[in-house]
Amino acid sequence: MIEAGKVYLVGAGPGDPDLLTVKAHKLLALADVILHDDLVPAAILALAGPRADVVNVGKRCGAKGATQSEINTQMIAAAQAGLSVVRLKGGDPAIFGRLAEEINALESENILWEIVPGITAGLAAAASLGASLTDRRKAARVVIITNHHAAGTAPTHPDWQGLAREDATLVIYMPGRDLENLREQLLAAGLPPEIPAAVVSRAASPDQAVQCATLGDLSSLPRIPAPSILLVGWSLDSAVRRALAANAPALLAEADLILSTR
Amino acid sequence: MIEAGKVYLVGAGPGDPDLLTVKAHKLLALADVILHDDLVPAAILALAGPRADVVNVGKRCGAKGATQSEINTQMIAAAQAGLSVVRLKGGDPAIFGRLAEEINALESENILWEIVPGITAGLAAAASLGASLTDRRKAARVVIITNHHAAGTAPTHPDWQGLAREDATLVIYMPGRDLENLREQLLAAGLPPEIPAAVVSRAASPDQAVQCATLGDLSSLPRIPAPSILLVGWSLDSAVRRALAANAPALLAEADLILSTR
Repeated sequence: MIEAGKVYLVGAGPGDPDLLTVKAHKLLALADVILHDDLVPAAILALAGPRADVVNVGKRCGAKGATQSEINTQMIAAAQAGLSVVRLKGGDPAIFGRLAEEINALESENILWEIVPGITAGLAAAASLGASLTDRRKAARVVIITNHHAAGTAPTHPDWQGLAREDATLVIYMPGRDLENLREQLLAAGLPPEIPAAVVSRAASPDQAVQCATLGDLSSLPRIPAPSILLVGWSLDSAVRRALAANAPALLAEADLILSTR
Repeated sequence: MIEAGKVYLVGAGPGDPDLLTVKAHKLLALADVILHDDLVPAAILALAGPRADVVNVGKRCGAKGATQSEINTQMIAAAQAGLSVVRLKGGDPAIFGRLAEEINALESENILWEIVPGITAGLAAAASLGASLTDRRKAARVVIITNHHAAGTAPTHPDWQGLAREDATLVIYMPGRDLENLREQLLAAGLPPEIPAAVVSRAASPDQAVQCATLGDLSSLPRIPAPSILLVGWSLDSAVRRALAANAPALLAEADLILSTR
């Protein structure tokens, strides 16, 4: 099941151990070394085998952590020592996970590697909200984007003009704290103030929080803890109406409050 | 773990039982009734409990199957009879899964429901290809779209002008057989002929196939079996070069051929 001298680039999903894939679950139990991002919760790391070397290589804004170069060096050294390595990343490794850079580093040293996909945060957020991201009656495309300047070569303000369309659902990773600014940009790009919006914080974790509004009211939402996902689009209409009709309190600590609403 | 009288709208992932979530695995073992799409393979249905009622409600182009209304009726009847129901959908239920329509039907009858996310086909395709969908050096956004006219209210030809951009990775579900037409549209929308493209058929299943090209050469690819995903974007550059450099045969039956290439 697991090979020595190989690096498995594994998606940890949104945080709930039950939302790991079966394959990730097996690899965690078998790996010699687990190099994990900061956001992977203890309940998932607890699935490591008793003799595994579990190392936090995560970095967060403002906090110290391994540089990308140091992470690459650790992966390569462990694989070259003949160990099986799980490089565990939050969500899915192919979405805002610096996966390409790690693959480039592994290939430059001829290390065997494999990607194991995971549930990306945007899809976990939609599930927690109780919404489909596509609706053939409303929006038949999904745009996954980040508002975080460090994540891309894109300008600080993404060019929303072509992307913010009423027939698309926007899934915005790392929306940041300045929702007022984001609201202005999306309205300027032509979205109507009535279009539904939701912020899902720490989706599928025990301290998950969901906030619903319209785009026009977006900046009135209280700040909720990062990491969060901002969803905007007509496909969220029913889910957002349901949450607002339930007179949702400022923080809905459990998705079940929404999902089980009659 | 599972509640009677409730419908779980569960993503089955791309087809490999190891890419089910742990939660989906548990629910399949416990459910009284499993209503599944046509594409869910036998290896996953085999995880159903011995007394479960397993019903194929799938429909495929040209083949007979339950209508959406009949599926809704079956879900509601089973839940109202006090049974636990898994509605098992290929990939992730929130991406091109008609999830919104099923939720609307369940809510109209006050049936409890919950979404369990799954690995969507586009992310499984990227993992099989060995590519990241975002690369902060190249493309910091992902557009998920279908070329299938029945999937949306969009016109038959999606408006690629705003969506086909060099700083985005296109993930095209149901690209169809007319890759020549699609190639023309994407070139007309401004993408360069050199941009990498890959078609991944039946990602993460035993008969997976991967074809790599550039957009300009897209229509020269042999037809490969549906369901497939077409990926287009600079973020695929390394993976597509790797596959082409390995002088990939017409059909790479196993992703390992690519993933393990030194």
